Amino acid sequence: MATGLFISFEGIDGSGKSTQARLLAEALRQAGHEALLTREPGGSPGAEEIRSLVLTGDSGRWSAETELLLFTAARRDHLERTIRPALAEGRTVITDRFADSTRVYQGATRGDLRDTVDRLHALMIGAEPDLTFLIDMDPATALARGLARGSGEDRFEDMGLGFQQTLRAGFLDLAAAAPDRFRVIDGDRAPEAVAAEIAAIALPRAGLPS
Amino acid sequence: MATGLFISFEGIDGSGKSTQARLLAEALRQAGHEALLTREPGGSPGAEEIRSLVLTGDSGRWSAETELLLFTAARRDHLERTIRPALAEGRTVITDRFADSTRVYQGATRGDLRDTVDRLHALMIGAEPDLTFLIDMDPATALARGLARGSGEDRFEDMGLGFQQTLRAGFLDLAAAAPDRFRVIDGDRAPEAVAAEIAAIALPRAGLPS
Repeated sequence: MATGLFISFEGIDGSGKSTQARLLAEALRQAGHEALLTREPGGSPGAEEIRSLVLTGDSGRWSAETELLLFTAARRDHLERTIRPALAEGRTVITDRFADSTRVYQGATRGDLRDTVDRLHALMIGAEPDLTFLIDMDPATALARGLARGSGEDRFEDMGLGFQQTLRAGFLDLAAAAPDRFRVIDGDRAPEAVAAEIAAIALPRAGLPS
Repeated sequence: MATGLFISFEGIDGSGKSTQARLLAEALRQAGHEALLTREPGGSPGAEEIRSLVLTGDSGRWSAETELLLFTAARRDHLERTIRPALAEGRTVITDRFADSTRVYQGATRGDLRDTVDRLHALMIGAEPDLTFLIDMDPATALARGLARGSGEDRFEDMGLGFQQTLRAGFLDLAAAAPDRFRVIDGDRAPEAVAAEIAAIALPRAGLPS
Protein backbone atom coordinates (compact mmCIF):
# COMPACT_ATOMS: atom_id res chain seq x y z
CA MET A 1 0.00 0.00 0.00
CA ALA A 2 1.29 3.42 -0.98
CA THR A 3 1.76 5.78 1.94
CA GLY A 4 2.37 9.45 1.38
CA LEU A 5 4.73 11.78 3.18
CA PHE A 6 3.32 13.82 6.08
CA ILE A 7 4.96 17.27 6.43
CA SER A 8 4.19 20.04 8.93
CA PHE A 9 5.26 23.69 9.06
CA GLU A 10 5.72 25.35 12.43
CA GLY A 11 6.91 28.72 13.68
CA ILE A 12 5.87 31.93 15.38
CA ASP A 13 3.37 34.36 13.88
CA GLY A 14 4.95 36.30 11.03
CA SER A 15 7.64 33.70 10.36
CA GLY A 16 6.26 33.10 6.88
CA LYS A 17 5.40 29.43 7.52
CA SER A 18 1.99 29.64 5.78
CA THR A 19 3.61 31.12 2.70
CA GLN A 20 6.30 28.43 2.73
CA ALA A 21 3.73 25.63 3.15
CA ARG A 22 1.93 26.95 0.08
CA LEU A 23 5.13 27.31 -1.96
CA LEU A 24 6.14 23.71 -1.17
CA ALA A 25 2.72 22.42 -2.22
CA GLU A 26 3.12 24.34 -5.51
CA ALA A 27 6.63 22.99 -6.05
CA LEU A 28 5.41 19.42 -5.54
CA ARG A 29 2.51 19.90 -7.93
CA GLN A 30 4.78 21.43 -10.55
CA ALA A 31 6.89 18.29 -10.28
CA GLY A 32 3.75 16.28 -11.08
CA HIS A 33 3.23 15.07 -7.52
CA GLU A 34 -0.10 15.02 -5.68
CA ALA A 35 0.07 17.32 -2.67
CA LEU A 36 -2.64 18.29 -0.21
CA LEU A 37 -2.24 21.62 1.63
CA THR A 38 -4.12 21.87 4.92
CA ARG A 39 -3.93 23.77 8.23
CA GLU A 40 -4.71 23.68 11.94
CA PRO A 41 -6.80 24.42 13.82
CA GLY A 42 -9.27 23.22 11.20
CA GLY A 43 -8.53 21.25 8.06
CA SER A 44 -11.76 19.23 7.86
CA PRO A 45 -15.40 20.34 7.99
CA GLY A 46 -15.90 19.12 11.58
CA ALA A 47 -12.57 20.53 12.75
CA GLU A 48 -13.43 23.91 11.21
CA GLU A 49 -16.64 23.97 13.25
CA ILE A 50 -14.70 23.16 16.41
CA ARG A 51 -12.15 25.83 15.44
CA SER A 52 -14.83 28.51 15.29
CA LEU A 53 -16.29 27.34 18.60
CA VAL A 54 -12.84 27.74 20.19
CA LEU A 55 -11.67 30.93 18.53
CA THR A 56 -14.76 33.14 18.57
CA GLY A 57 -16.23 34.86 21.59
CA ASP A 58 -14.74 36.02 24.88
CA SER A 59 -11.13 34.98 25.50
CA GLY A 60 -12.07 33.61 28.95
CA ARG A 61 -14.84 31.51 27.48
CA TRP A 62 -12.95 28.23 27.82
CA SER A 63 -10.38 27.12 30.38
CA ALA A 64 -6.99 25.99 29.08
CA GLU A 65 -7.98 22.37 29.77
CA THR A 66 -11.29 22.56 27.89
CA GLU A 67 -9.62 24.37 24.99
CA LEU A 68 -6.96 21.64 24.87
CA LEU A 69 -9.68 18.97 24.61
CA LEU A 70 -11.46 20.91 21.86
CA PHE A 71 -8.26 21.40 19.86
CA THR A 72 -7.48 17.69 20.28
CA ALA A 73 -10.98 16.78 19.04
CA ALA A 74 -10.41 19.02 16.00
CA ARG A 75 -6.99 17.42 15.40
CA ARG A 76 -8.45 13.92 15.61
CA ASP A 77 -11.12 14.83 13.05
CA HIS A 78 -8.52 16.48 10.79
CA LEU A 79 -6.31 13.40 11.01
CA GLU A 80 -9.13 10.93 10.29
CA ARG A 81 -11.03 12.81 7.63
CA THR A 82 -8.31 14.71 5.75
CA ILE A 83 -4.75 13.64 6.55
CA ARG A 84 -4.94 9.83 6.75
CA PRO A 85 -7.14 9.33 3.64
CA ALA A 86 -4.74 11.46 1.56
CA LEU A 87 -1.66 9.63 2.89
CA ALA A 88 -3.37 6.30 2.14
CA GLU A 89 -3.70 7.41 -1.49
CA GLY A 90 0.03 8.11 -1.61
CA ARG A 91 -0.34 11.89 -1.59
CA THR A 92 2.01 14.22 0.28
CA VAL A 93 0.16 16.09 3.04
CA ILE A 94 1.45 19.51 4.07
CA THR A 95 -0.11 21.03 7.16
CA ASP A 96 0.32 24.59 8.41
CA ARG A 97 0.70 23.75 12.15
CA PHE A 98 0.13 20.42 13.90
CA ALA A 99 0.68 19.16 17.46
CA ASP A 100 3.96 21.04 18.00
CA SER A 101 2.00 24.31 18.01
CA THR A 102 -0.16 23.03 20.86
CA ARG A 103 2.93 21.93 22.79
CA VAL A 104 4.62 25.31 22.39
CA TYR A 105 1.59 27.58 22.98
CA GLN A 106 0.42 25.59 26.02
CA GLY A 107 3.98 25.42 27.30
CA ALA A 108 4.25 29.20 27.09
CA THR A 109 0.85 30.02 28.59
CA ARG A 110 0.23 27.11 30.99
CA GLY A 111 3.55 25.39 31.58
CA ASP A 112 1.95 23.11 34.18
CA LEU A 113 -0.10 21.51 31.38
CA ARG A 114 2.88 20.43 29.23
CA ASP A 115 2.86 16.87 30.55
CA THR A 116 -0.93 16.69 30.10
CA VAL A 117 -0.54 17.88 26.50
CA ASP A 118 1.92 15.06 25.78
CA ARG A 119 -0.19 12.39 27.50
CA LEU A 120 -3.36 13.51 25.72
CA HIS A 121 -1.54 13.45 22.37
CA ALA A 122 -0.21 9.94 23.01
CA LEU A 123 -3.68 8.71 24.03
CA MET A 124 -5.87 10.30 21.34
CA ILE A 125 -3.67 11.32 18.37
CA GLY A 126 -0.43 9.34 18.31
CA ALA A 127 0.61 10.38 14.80
CA GLU A 128 3.55 12.73 14.16
CA PRO A 129 4.64 14.21 10.84
CA ASP A 130 7.47 12.46 9.00
CA LEU A 131 9.13 15.83 8.52
CA THR A 132 8.63 19.19 10.27
CA PHE A 133 9.97 22.47 8.95
CA LEU A 134 10.47 25.02 11.72
CA ILE A 135 10.68 28.43 10.10
CA ASP A 136 12.86 30.19 12.63
CA MET A 137 12.98 33.95 12.94
CA ASP A 138 13.77 36.58 15.54
CA PRO A 139 10.34 37.94 16.60
CA ALA A 140 11.69 41.51 16.60
CA THR A 141 12.66 41.08 12.95
CA ALA A 142 9.26 39.60 12.11
CA LEU A 143 7.58 42.60 13.73
CA ALA A 144 9.90 45.09 12.02
CA ARG A 145 9.14 43.48 8.65
CA GLY A 146 5.48 43.99 9.36
CA LEU A 147 4.83 40.30 9.12
CA ALA A 148 3.23 39.85 12.53
CA ARG A 149 -0.10 41.06 11.25
CA GLY A 150 -3.26 40.02 13.06
CA SER A 151 -5.64 37.51 11.56
CA GLY A 152 -8.53 38.62 13.76
CA GLU A 153 -8.51 35.18 15.36
CA ASP A 154 -5.17 35.30 17.06
CA ARG A 155 -5.40 35.98 20.77
CA PHE A 156 -1.63 35.79 21.20
CA GLU A 157 -0.66 38.66 18.92
CA ASP A 158 -1.01 41.38 21.57
CA MET A 159 0.93 39.48 24.23
CA GLY A 160 4.12 41.27 23.24
CA LEU A 161 7.62 40.55 22.05
CA GLY A 162 8.66 38.68 25.20
CA PHE A 163 5.89 36.16 24.65
CA GLN A 164 6.89 35.64 21.02
CA GLN A 165 10.48 35.08 22.19
CA THR A 166 9.21 32.41 24.61
CA LEU A 167 7.35 30.72 21.74
CA ARG A 168 10.43 30.79 19.54
CA ALA A 169 12.52 29.20 22.30
CA GLY A 170 9.80 26.56 22.76
CA PHE A 171 9.90 25.59 19.09
CA LEU A 172 13.71 25.43 19.10
CA ASP A 173 13.60 23.17 22.17
CA LEU A 174 11.22 20.77 20.41
CA ALA A 175 13.46 20.74 17.33
CA ALA A 176 16.52 19.96 19.45
CA ALA A 177 14.65 17.08 21.11
CA ALA A 178 13.57 15.50 17.80
CA PRO A 179 16.39 16.19 15.33
CA ASP A 180 15.39 13.35 12.99
CA ARG A 181 11.98 14.89 12.39
CA PHE A 182 12.74 18.63 12.47
CA ARG A 183 14.56 20.82 9.98
CA VAL A 184 15.20 24.31 11.34
CA ILE A 185 15.10 26.81 8.48
CA ASP A 186 16.39 30.39 8.71
CA GLY A 187 13.31 32.45 7.84
CA ASP A 188 15.12 35.78 7.80
CA ARG A 189 15.79 35.66 4.05
CA ALA A 190 13.88 36.30 0.83
CA PRO A 191 10.91 33.88 0.59
CA GLU A 192 12.31 32.39 -2.64
CA ALA A 193 15.59 31.48 -0.93
CA VAL A 194 13.75 29.89 1.98
CA ALA A 195 11.48 27.99 -0.43
CA ALA A 196 14.44 26.67 -2.42
CA GLU A 197 16.09 25.25 0.70
CA ILE A 198 12.83 23.58 1.77
CA ALA A 199 12.19 22.10 -1.69
CA ALA A 200 15.71 20.69 -1.80
CA ILE A 201 14.98 18.78 1.42
CA ALA A 202 11.34 17.81 0.80
CA LEU A 203 11.30 16.76 -2.87
CA PRO A 204 13.77 13.88 -2.50
CA ARG A 205 11.84 12.66 0.55
CA ALA A 206 8.72 12.55 -1.64
CA GLY A 207 10.67 10.49 -4.21
CA LEU A 208 11.21 13.39 -6.62
CA PRO A 209 14.44 14.97 -7.94
CA SER A 210 15.24 18.13 -5.96
CA MET B 1 -14.43 25.49 53.59
CA ALA B 2 -17.89 24.03 53.05
CA THR B 3 -18.05 21.39 50.35
CA GLY B 4 -21.36 20.17 49.03
CA LEU B 5 -22.41 16.68 48.12
CA PHE B 6 -22.06 15.59 44.48
CA ILE B 7 -24.77 13.16 43.35
CA SER B 8 -25.34 11.60 39.93
CA PHE B 9 -28.27 9.66 38.49
CA GLU B 10 -27.59 6.97 35.90
CA GLY B 11 -29.66 4.39 34.05
CA ILE B 12 -31.01 3.36 30.67
CA ASP B 13 -33.47 5.48 28.69
CA GLY B 14 -36.94 5.25 30.19
CA SER B 15 -35.68 4.24 33.65
CA GLY B 16 -37.12 7.41 35.15
CA LYS B 17 -33.74 8.79 36.28
CA SER B 18 -34.45 12.34 35.11
CA THR B 19 -37.72 12.36 37.06
CA GLN B 20 -35.96 10.99 40.13
CA ALA B 21 -33.15 13.56 39.88
CA ARG B 22 -35.78 16.31 39.85
CA LEU B 23 -37.74 14.81 42.75
CA LEU B 24 -34.60 14.59 44.90
CA ALA B 25 -33.74 18.23 44.15
CA GLU B 26 -37.26 19.20 45.22
CA ALA B 27 -37.05 17.11 48.41
CA LEU B 28 -33.75 18.79 49.33
CA ARG B 29 -35.16 22.26 48.71
CA GLN B 30 -38.29 21.48 50.73
CA ALA B 31 -35.96 20.56 53.59
CA GLY B 32 -34.42 24.04 53.26
CA HIS B 33 -31.23 22.82 51.56
CA GLU B 34 -29.61 24.45 48.53
CA ALA B 35 -29.63 22.00 45.62
CA LEU B 36 -28.52 22.47 42.04
CA LEU B 37 -30.07 20.22 39.38
CA THR B 38 -28.01 19.82 36.20
CA ARG B 39 -27.52 17.32 33.39
CA GLU B 40 -25.12 15.91 30.81
CA PRO B 41 -24.25 16.31 28.08
CA GLY B 42 -24.53 20.02 28.74
CA GLY B 43 -25.01 21.73 32.09
CA SER B 44 -23.07 24.95 31.37
CA PRO B 45 -23.34 27.43 28.48
CA GLY B 46 -20.14 26.19 26.81
CA ALA B 47 -21.02 22.53 27.35
CA GLU B 48 -24.48 23.10 25.85
CA GLU B 49 -22.83 24.49 22.71
CA ILE B 50 -20.57 21.45 22.49
CA ARG B 51 -23.61 19.22 23.14
CA SER B 52 -25.42 20.65 20.14
CA LEU B 53 -22.30 20.31 17.99
CA VAL B 54 -22.15 16.60 18.92
CA LEU B 55 -25.84 15.69 18.82
CA THR B 56 -27.10 17.48 15.73
CA GLY B 57 -26.40 16.49 12.15
CA ASP B 58 -25.54 13.20 10.52
CA SER B 59 -24.86 10.30 12.91
CA GLY B 60 -21.59 9.50 11.12
CA ARG B 61 -20.42 13.09 11.45
CA TRP B 62 -17.89 12.34 14.19
CA SER B 63 -15.86 9.21 14.87
CA ALA B 64 -16.24 7.59 18.30
CA GLU B 65 -12.84 9.02 19.31
CA THR B 66 -13.66 12.59 18.27
CA GLU B 67 -17.05 12.37 19.96
CA LEU B 68 -15.37 11.11 23.14
CA LEU B 69 -13.05 14.14 23.11
CA LEU B 70 -15.97 16.53 22.55
CA PHE B 71 -18.02 14.97 25.38
CA THR B 72 -14.97 15.17 27.63
CA ALA B 73 -14.51 18.87 26.74
CA ALA B 74 -18.18 19.45 27.61
CA ARG B 75 -17.77 17.56 30.90
CA ARG B 76 -14.68 19.58 31.82
CA ASP B 77 -16.57 22.83 31.19
CA HIS B 78 -19.61 21.57 33.14
CA LEU B 79 -17.37 20.58 36.05
CA GLU B 80 -15.46 23.89 36.14
CA ARG B 81 -18.28 26.31 35.47
CA THR B 82 -21.29 24.68 37.15
CA ILE B 83 -20.48 21.74 39.44
CA ARG B 84 -17.35 22.86 41.31
CA PRO B 85 -18.52 26.44 42.04
CA ALA B 86 -21.80 25.11 43.51
CA LEU B 87 -20.00 22.48 45.61
CA ALA B 88 -17.60 25.16 46.85
CA GLU B 89 -20.62 27.13 48.14
CA GLY B 90 -21.74 24.05 50.07
CA ARG B 91 -24.64 23.25 47.75
CA THR B 92 -25.68 19.73 46.80
CA VAL B 93 -25.22 19.12 43.07
CA ILE B 94 -27.48 16.58 41.37
CA THR B 95 -26.57 15.68 37.80
CA ASP B 96 -28.66 13.64 35.37
CA ARG B 97 -25.80 11.52 33.92
CA PHE B 98 -22.04 11.94 34.38
CA ALA B 99 -18.98 9.90 33.38
CA ASP B 100 -20.61 6.50 34.01
CA SER B 101 -22.89 7.10 31.02
CA THR B 102 -19.86 7.59 28.79
CA ARG B 103 -18.26 4.42 30.16
CA VAL B 104 -21.40 2.36 29.53
CA TYR B 105 -22.39 3.77 26.12
CA GLN B 106 -18.83 3.58 24.76
CA GLY B 107 -18.44 0.12 26.28
CA ALA B 108 -21.57 -1.04 24.46
CA THR B 109 -20.83 0.57 21.10
CA ARG B 110 -17.00 0.54 20.95
CA GLY B 111 -15.77 -1.90 23.56
CA ASP B 112 -12.18 -1.44 22.36
CA LEU B 113 -12.33 2.16 23.61
CA ARG B 114 -13.20 1.34 27.24
CA ASP B 115 -9.61 1.64 28.43
CA THR B 116 -9.19 4.90 26.49
CA VAL B 117 -12.36 6.25 28.15
CA ASP B 118 -10.93 5.51 31.60
CA ARG B 119 -7.51 6.97 30.82
CA LEU B 120 -9.00 10.12 29.31
CA HIS B 121 -11.24 10.55 32.36
CA ALA B 122 -8.28 10.13 34.74
CA LEU B 123 -6.21 12.65 32.74
CA MET B 124 -8.76 15.41 32.09
CA ILE B 125 -11.66 15.03 34.56
CA GLY B 126 -10.61 13.08 37.64
CA ALA B 127 -13.70 13.91 39.71
CA GLU B 128 -16.34 11.29 40.56
CA PRO B 129 -19.67 11.84 42.31
CA ASP B 130 -19.81 11.12 46.04
CA LEU B 131 -22.99 9.13 45.45
CA THR B 132 -24.49 7.61 42.29
CA PHE B 133 -28.05 6.36 42.05
CA LEU B 134 -28.45 3.72 39.36
CA ILE B 135 -32.15 3.49 38.53
CA ASP B 136 -32.28 -0.12 37.42
CA MET B 137 -35.06 -1.44 35.25
CA ASP B 138 -35.68 -4.25 32.79
CA PRO B 139 -35.61 -2.52 29.36
CA ALA B 140 -38.61 -4.57 28.20
CA THR B 141 -40.61 -3.20 31.13
CA ALA B 142 -39.48 0.33 30.39
CA LEU B 143 -40.60 -0.07 26.78
CA ALA B 144 -43.93 -1.64 27.82
CA ARG B 145 -44.55 1.29 30.16
CA GLY B 146 -44.03 3.62 27.26
CA LEU B 147 -41.17 5.32 29.05
CA ALA B 148 -38.55 4.79 26.36
CA ARG B 149 -39.78 7.77 24.44
CA GLY B 150 -37.45 9.56 22.06
CA SER B 151 -36.03 12.96 22.92
CA GLY B 152 -35.18 13.72 19.30
CA GLU B 153 -31.51 13.75 20.27
CA ASP B 154 -31.05 10.13 21.24
CA ARG B 155 -29.34 8.09 18.57
CA PHE B 156 -29.46 4.93 20.70
CA GLU B 157 -33.24 4.60 21.00
CA ASP B 158 -33.72 2.68 17.77
CA MET B 159 -30.89 0.22 18.43
CA GLY B 160 -33.35 -2.24 19.96
CA LEU B 161 -33.99 -4.11 23.14
CA GLY B 162 -30.79 -6.15 22.99
CA PHE B 163 -28.73 -2.96 23.02
CA GLN B 164 -30.66 -1.59 26.01
CA GLN B 165 -30.02 -4.88 27.80
CA THR B 166 -26.29 -4.47 27.11
CA LEU B 167 -26.42 -0.96 28.57
CA ARG B 168 -28.25 -2.19 31.65
CA ALA B 169 -25.62 -4.90 32.20
CA GLY B 170 -22.89 -2.28 31.76
CA PHE B 171 -24.37 -0.05 34.46
CA LEU B 172 -24.77 -3.00 36.83
CA ASP B 173 -21.12 -3.97 36.24
CA LEU B 174 -19.97 -0.46 37.15
CA ALA B 175 -22.13 -0.50 40.28
CA ALA B 176 -20.67 -3.85 41.35
CA ALA B 177 -17.14 -2.51 40.85
CA ALA B 178 -17.75 0.64 42.98
CA PRO B 179 -20.19 -0.42 45.72
CA ASP B 180 -19.23 2.46 48.04
CA ARG B 181 -20.31 5.04 45.48
CA PHE B 182 -23.30 3.33 43.82
CA ARG B 183 -26.78 2.66 45.15
CA VAL B 184 -28.79 0.43 42.81
CA ILE B 185 -32.46 1.39 43.01
CA ASP B 186 -35.31 -0.78 41.71
CA GLY B 187 -37.01 1.54 39.21
CA ASP B 188 -39.91 -0.81 38.49
CA ARG B 189 -42.18 0.77 41.14
CA ALA B 190 -44.34 3.88 41.45
CA PRO B 191 -42.18 7.03 41.15
CA GLU B 192 -43.16 8.12 44.67
CA ALA B 193 -41.89 4.86 46.17
CA VAL B 194 -38.60 5.15 44.26
CA ALA B 195 -38.25 8.80 45.33
CA ALA B 196 -38.86 7.94 48.99
CA GLU B 197 -36.07 5.33 48.98
CA ILE B 198 -33.65 7.76 47.31
CA ALA B 199 -34.48 10.59 49.72
CA ALA B 200 -33.95 8.28 52.69
CA ILE B 201 -30.41 7.63 51.44
CA ALA B 202 -29.51 11.10 50.16
CA LEU B 203 -30.90 13.46 52.80
CA PRO B 204 -28.77 12.10 55.68
CA ARG B 205 -25.69 12.29 53.43
CA ALA B 206 -26.50 15.98 52.90
CA GLY B 207 -26.71 16.46 56.67
CA LEU B 208 -30.53 16.52 56.79
CA PRO B 209 -33.01 14.26 58.60
CA SER B 210 -34.41 11.66 56.22
